[in-house]
Amino acid sequence: MNPLPRCADWSALDTCQRINILARPPRLHDAGQLADVRAIIAAVRARGDAALREIGLRLDRCELATFEVGAAEFTAAERAVDAGARAAMRRAVARVEAFHAAQKPRPFALDTAPGMRCEQLWRPIGRVGLYAPAGSAPLPSTVWMLGVPARVAGCGEILLATPPRADGSADPAILVAARLCGIERVFKLGGAQAIAALAYGTESVPRCAKLFGPGNSWVTTAKLEVAADPDGAAIDMPAGPSEVLVIADDAADPAFVAADLLAQAEHGADSQVLLASPSQRLLDAVLHALEIQLASLPRAAIARAALAHARLIRVPDLDCAIEIAERYAPEHLIVNTRDARALLPMIANAGSIFLGGWSPETLGDYCAGPNHVLPTLGFARAFSGVGVESFLRRVYVQEASSAGLRAIGPDAARLARAEALEAHARAVDLRLAALDRGSAALGAGGDA
Amino acid sequence: MNPLPRCADWSALDTCQRINILARPPRLHDAGQLADVRAIIAAVRARGDAALREIGLRLDRCELATFEVGAAEFTAAERAVDAGARAAMRRAVARVEAFHAAQKPRPFALDTAPGMRCEQLWRPIGRVGLYAPAGSAPLPSTVWMLGVPARVAGCGEILLATPPRADGSADPAILVAARLCGIERVFKLGGAQAIAALAYGTESVPRCAKLFGPGNSWVTTAKLEVAADPDGAAIDMPAGPSEVLVIADDAADPAFVAADLLAQAEHGADSQVLLASPSQRLLDAVLHALEIQLASLPRAAIARAALAHARLIRVPDLDCAIEIAERYAPEHLIVNTRDARALLPMIANAGSIFLGGWSPETLGDYCAGPNHVLPTLGFARAFSGVGVESFLRRVYVQEASSAGLRAIGPDAARLARAEALEAHARAVDLRLAALDRGSAALGAGGDA
Repeated sequence: MNPLPRCADWSALDTCQRINILARPPRLHDAGQLADVRAIIAAVRARGDAALREIGLRLDRCELATFEVGAAEFTAAERAVDAGARAAMRRAVARVEAFHAAQKPRPFALDTAPGMRCEQLWRPIGRVGLYAPAGSAPLPSTVWMLGVPARVAGCGEILLATPPRADGSADPAILVAARLCGIERVFKLGGAQAIAALAYGTESVPRCAKLFGPGNSWVTTAKLEVAADPDGAAIDMPAGPSEVLVIADDAADPAFVAADLLAQAEHGADSQVLLASPSQRLLDAVLHALEIQLASLPRAAIARAALAHARLIRVPDLDCAIEIAERYAPEHLIVNTRDARALLPMIANAGSIFLGGWSPETLGDYCAGPNHVLPTLGFARAFSGVGVESFLRRVYVQEASSAGLRAIGPDAARLARAEALEAHARAVDLRLAALDRGSAALGAGGDA
Repeated sequence: MNPLPRCADWSALDTCQRINILARPPRLHDAGQLADVRAIIAAVRARGDAALREIGLRLDRCELATFEVGAAEFTAAERAVDAGARAAMRRAVARVEAFHAAQKPRPFALDTAPGMRCEQLWRPIGRVGLYAPAGSAPLPSTVWMLGVPARVAGCGEILLATPPRADGSADPAILVAARLCGIERVFKLGGAQAIAALAYGTESVPRCAKLFGPGNSWVTTAKLEVAADPDGAAIDMPAGPSEVLVIADDAADPAFVAADLLAQAEHGADSQVLLASPSQRLLDAVLHALEIQLASLPRAAIARAALAHARLIRVPDLDCAIEIAERYAPEHLIVNTRDARALLPMIANAGSIFLGGWSPETLGDYCAGPNHVLPTLGFARAFSGVGVESFLRRVYVQEASSAGLRAIGPDAARLARAEALEAHARAVDLRLAALDRGSAALGAGGDA
């Protein structure tokens, strides 16, 4: 049995100890894995489908005639998933879609001077590649958390890659989710080879401009590699183990808090689980509730491994708990306190926030509406979770009439000369001179 | 004298030749520079200001007692820049601010089920670091293109780094621009050491969560390094040489087109300059105008070097020109045709678009309103230019009432069990059971 979570009293810690207790575990640089990932990417770029087939046989022990899921397999998947689960998925997709539709940004136009029209347009990314982990733990929810915003954004083509099972089929729930999101093309590919295929294209897999989705260390390493290559593909964000920080006061039900911590802990041994509370009574009760709930948990061994490095922190007050959250910048922040909403204005560094006792993270993980692909590893200090905009680009448009050029051209030319960029200035001056000649020819006020 | 730009007839090219003519130059992987950058970053992390001082002495040949610009230097800078330039800068800042204020996203809230409140908030990044190149070509315009959106976003602290001049002072125009944007703290630091200081902090430079701005290969290499480190800092985007693609028909004035190409070409020998036109007459006239305009251009040598690898492409029609633009995905796209706006709906892959004959890129480079920090190297296929949102994070909030939990909790628990995440399901079920107990105690319809 693993040791209990690490307990600490924030007031008793010195600066170094405070930094240490909020530190993520060091990520071991696995040079061997990086070399393997690079070799896989190089092979897929060089030999396309043939390389995918070889690597699949070697790593997934599965030989596929075609990677793409056909109509018959989609039909079989519908039959394999029970009607109740399909209905729950449909409702989840509808709620996630309602939220993301509200999120869709609008274009605007603004004249910053008379005749100087400036616009911001939004354009969907042409072709995007989504990745849904499968294998021991298929995650169909990832399919709608990526597929819905891609569809709302209007991406031209949405591809999905997911690892094949031992018998060469795809996970049926993932296929059902793909169909619910309007994803027509699913490829049975996993790991670094899937990322390489989506980023560079092969005979059977079209090349994508941006890749999305969680995955194991092979997938995330491959994503960082293709993102670093201008000929590769953009990625949603760098990813690490999932995280939750719970802030709770003595009004919180300790069983609820324990359940929320365990929901995080069951993800994997590397899950990050933190609790900050001003109430020693609550902390003690949560520890007790953890033991009780662990006793009957199917993934208890994984949860215990994660809890072994969990941190339960006694704080002098809720302000201090918020300060800890801001320093740690968790992926998920649960605020289970008397007036949780009152604390919201003080919170900036979190991917997604759950307020009050009736808001377990599970709701947001599946079907509340907002996205569940969120920044980990403290990236919430600078990154947002996935949203519709992750599938769009902002495009600027500038259109000057001759009046607009007259209004701001002289400033632009002057500022260009201040940077010693004479050709920039002349591109304006030539046009102003042409306008002046036109005006002279046409009489004052003539617009060329 | 360098050779003329490369001319080609798109219709006469085969698939390979089309790919080649639109290819960016290969970026040489400079392992020596990467090692140097890593050594600089390691030194700054280990020894802070002392390392900054040593590196500055070695690379900038400039020894500074303090890196931060003081009040006296700001005052001297105001006197060093003439009133006309200062006024033009003020107007530029005002126009850029008007556009970026319109760009600021609004939060929203939506109930996706009765009692299931979902929100999207926006939070400014706490502390951001901007970089403005100086040395041979100081770029004060970069200061307002980064400083204005940072201020509109409401970032808590906005730092600026810019290389010192030989006498240890900062470029006065950059300081004036900083003051106009409300930037209070400017550090005289350049190159990889500036990026390292902003990303990790030193005794005198506070650590920033995200770094912005263009720079030479030392700066961009260092930015990619700190971005790859979870303990480093996020960055605006990967950057390459500046680019323009001009689409022009026979209605365009060839002198204007040539001037726009030269404005791009004067940036550097590696600038990317492309022209696509269905009119051979226009292409010939542009070549002629280029020679005439080059004769008197101060930076003619640089422009000629860039033009040596420029590409002038004859296309069968404007649809084909648009197809080329979509394939190339330029940083800047100038559409200088009869009805330029009619082509806009067909364009998705460009950082910033300039429509019509009176819209030289120079306007947008300095003072039209939209940002000029834009994706290069084809990154426009998946990335946006800098905007207010680059300085914000989207934060999701989920708050369920007991009614909200009852409405969607059973779906969430079912979907969690479908992913074999029992603890996720129990975090919901425990609460639903508590509600049921409460209802039983309070009578039907009681809300805990």
